[in-house]
Amino acid sequence: MAAPIDFYFDFSSPYGYVASHKIDALAAKHGREAAWRPFLLGVAFKATGQQPLPSIPIKGDYARHDFLRSARFHGVPYRHPTTFPIASVAPTRAFYWLNAQDPKRAKDLARALYAAYFLEDIDTSNADNVVAVAAKSGLTADAVRAGMNDQAVKDLTKAAVDKALGIGAFGSPYVVVDGEPFWGVDRFDQIERWLATGGF
Amino acid sequence: MAAPIDFYFDFSSPYGYVASHKIDALAAKHGREAAWRPFLLGVAFKATGQQPLPSIPIKGDYARHDFLRSARFHGVPYRHPTTFPIASVAPTRAFYWLNAQDPKRAKDLARALYAAYFLEDIDTSNADNVVAVAAKSGLTADAVRAGMNDQAVKDLTKAAVDKALGIGAFGSPYVVVDGEPFWGVDRFDQIERWLATGGF
Repeated sequence: MAAPIDFYFDFSSPYGYVASHKIDALAAKHGREAAWRPFLLGVAFKATGQQPLPSIPIKGDYARHDFLRSARFHGVPYRHPTTFPIASVAPTRAFYWLNAQDPKRAKDLARALYAAYFLEDIDTSNADNVVAVAAKSGLTADAVRAGMNDQAVKDLTKAAVDKALGIGAFGSPYVVVDGEPFWGVDRFDQIERWLATGGF
Repeated sequence: MAAPIDFYFDFSSPYGYVASHKIDALAAKHGREAAWRPFLLGVAFKATGQQPLPSIPIKGDYARHDFLRSARFHGVPYRHPTTFPIASVAPTRAFYWLNAQDPKRAKDLARALYAAYFLEDIDTSNADNVVAVAAKSGLTADAVRAGMNDQAVKDLTKAAVDKALGIGAFGSPYVVVDGEPFWGVDRFDQIERWLATGGF
């Protein structure tokens, strides 16, 4: 099997959430796997001097409208969170804690965390909420909490974020196929053709 | 025939240029016409505090790569201009001068101005170059020059730019279908579905 495609995303990103519903099927269709690599968009925004979309005049209003319309377009259920955007350190640490043991279950946890925030309006910037979501997914609450507070997991998370910034991920989702970067769920049509043809 | 769809674009915008190759066919396919409405992205950027893509760290490098790849993806020839971005007042004034007399010829002039900049590397921020492109398209050089310098045309251009900002155009292309706004040539798939279904 060819190398996995890298799926960088932030747990507070609407377009990352929509992409999370599509990336594995897209990869599988072309005999590939997707490696899920959550990172912290807030850190990337500092590096590039960007602001979160909702705080940009005019563009922010459009963005709020486009989040919902794009979710409908892609057939993904979506409920805009009451608190938006949020810091995504807590879910990202929970992910990397589990990913070190079982990447497949870490993906399931990521899906559950995305659903909690973008369907159930649960503020996953709160570590207690992350633990509760993980427990509902069958993980042991104490183990999740201990994992998120483990310095080794914090270091793993920081290294993953640094790696994402190092390869130039400035937005979410950011997908890399054999070295070729694609920003946005609106580049999935280009990713599809790239996977099918090996480049264009 | 249903109301035209509004196609807002900037003469210095790569994605606007790519969109200009697609918008009329897209509209016609659904029994519509496209009204071309050039505006000044620099003025919109001031209103929203945005910077031109190439001057944003990291994101700028990606953008330069994406301009070319997106053009290839859409089958549109593209040569990245040596001077980029440029002020687009001169071509916008030439457009509105001609548009007041003959909107169809104004579209042809817009296509010629886009081709000059994005294929032949002609700096269309320069009024003399705009006049030369227009003359090559069969217009009388002196008439074009006089038109661009006419205070009434300057006022018409300013009013068109104000109107674009008034409806919230913060990027290029910005397409409005029956009041529904779409930003980017990467929303043309959504526009297509919107035109086909009347909304989703």
